[in-house]
Amino acid sequence: MTSQPAVSSGCLCPVANLTIVGVGLIGGSFARAIREAGCVQHITGYGRNTENLKLAVELNVIDDYSLDVETAIHNADLIFIATPVGSIKQILTDIKTSLKEGVIITDAGSTKTSVINAAKDVFGFVPPFFIPGHPIAGTEYSGVSASFASLYQDHRVILTPLEDSDPDALKLVSCLWYAAGAHVVRMKHVHHDRILAATSHLPHLLAFSLVDTLASVDQRQEIFDFAAGGFKDFTRIASSDPVMWQDICLANKEALLEHIELFTQDLAKLSRAIKNNDADYLQRVFRRAKRTRDDFV
Amino acid sequence: MTSQPAVSSGCLCPVANLTIVGVGLIGGSFARAIREAGCVQHITGYGRNTENLKLAVELNVIDDYSLDVETAIHNADLIFIATPVGSIKQILTDIKTSLKEGVIITDAGSTKTSVINAAKDVFGFVPPFFIPGHPIAGTEYSGVSASFASLYQDHRVILTPLEDSDPDALKLVSCLWYAAGAHVVRMKHVHHDRILAATSHLPHLLAFSLVDTLASVDQRQEIFDFAAGGFKDFTRIASSDPVMWQDICLANKEALLEHIELFTQDLAKLSRAIKNNDADYLQRVFRRAKRTRDDFV
Repeated sequence: MTSQPAVSSGCLCPVANLTIVGVGLIGGSFARAIREAGCVQHITGYGRNTENLKLAVELNVIDDYSLDVETAIHNADLIFIATPVGSIKQILTDIKTSLKEGVIITDAGSTKTSVINAAKDVFGFVPPFFIPGHPIAGTEYSGVSASFASLYQDHRVILTPLEDSDPDALKLVSCLWYAAGAHVVRMKHVHHDRILAATSHLPHLLAFSLVDTLASVDQRQEIFDFAAGGFKDFTRIASSDPVMWQDICLANKEALLEHIELFTQDLAKLSRAIKNNDADYLQRVFRRAKRTRDDFV
Repeated sequence: MTSQPAVSSGCLCPVANLTIVGVGLIGGSFARAIREAGCVQHITGYGRNTENLKLAVELNVIDDYSLDVETAIHNADLIFIATPVGSIKQILTDIKTSLKEGVIITDAGSTKTSVINAAKDVFGFVPPFFIPGHPIAGTEYSGVSASFASLYQDHRVILTPLEDSDPDALKLVSCLWYAAGAHVVRMKHVHHDRILAATSHLPHLLAFSLVDTLASVDQRQEIFDFAAGGFKDFTRIASSDPVMWQDICLANKEALLEHIELFTQDLAKLSRAIKNNDADYLQRVFRRAKRTRDDFV
């Protein structure tokens, strides 16, 4: 274990012992950011990939690690869960009886209803010390080597506390995100899942789907040879982690299916307009889309 | 008319008088590139937007312009048509009787069968001096202000000459594209249209369609508020020129409709897999897509 500088006196929400469950892009970047902000004394990592955890120690992202999750969290004052959402229920089950008095748990899962239901299933209710969260930031890369302290700078973090959530726990988690440079927004979990289905989950599914469709056609080599910058950008998110996205699609299935349906109907209308040479319809849709996208940027 | 430097002795394919029909991103960048390469003595622009043409003269992209296309091309040794593909037939009709002896015509249209059919309709056959082309380069911006000399650097340009094409005309057009920094590839026009339907036309249609779908849902403001970098990249091409893309969709309708159909079927399979909690299927598709996309980059 390396010796650590004391927590900075400038930090409004110091944490003595933080455990990161899943030391990848998201967990690693959170650790780096709040370490840089001087808000943490000691960081323990938990994961299943020893190489990744060793690298995380070398990079000073964490101070030490355990391959046993109960060992990793038993002394934690704050537990940050940053694993694919499908694994969170098992993690909560595994740590349930080893939690330290006064611990606060938060997560970075991309879907919130499923995580809240997982907590309910494991504890019988959502513990007041559990503050569900979701940072709206990321890249298509994975693993601690992809993490960096400024990932959350000027990005939004959505917290979806419940009525029974402990105000102090909520304050601490919010404060740490501010220390990481993020803007914290609160939202109901169901609402979060609908918004994210539209803005993140559906685009990822479409990108994966398109690349897979093109990968299976006869001219696939030429198709990729002649792809330009537009295609590269359009498909960037298809390089994202497959396990993470499998979990998200299943965890947010209702909202996602609803948006797939909307999208498919609209695409069918465009297809019919092309078939019927309906230039006016295409023009209306393309103009509206361009205006919307230009406004957004 | 400003005085121009003589053509560089280093250029292997000097052109005395070039006319750019459509002085936008594509036409303007071609003019800049071959002017920089010292391959052209005088460049005339044609267009319908006087402000854009004035700006093109100010930026030294063209030397002069005319709002009358016959006047603009009557002295041209090379005519470069860089307007939306839907307008090319009318342009060929307008210039047909005013062409100078020995002129060479090329274009930058994103679909090639439709342009070749337009030439056939206008001339009764595809003139040997017409070399259909398509540079695989662009940005989501339009107009001469978006043009830059290095747009084609290390990009591919597809030429789709026909059996009767004049070898000298083909040589000149190829040489100019090399001078602009591009790699020239030859291909049959029908093959070009199939490849581009997959790699460019379908992604653009999906991006326009997605943004328009999301623009019409109740929570649209929040959706765009909470969109991250992935969404921004995914939808970049939805900021492209609506008229250009309306024309492309109609000009390449068979190949595009075929690819929409393939895509829709595959998306429906993913949708069913989500409905049925078929994690294995999702995992297979996402992994294959990620591998393909990672290889491509």
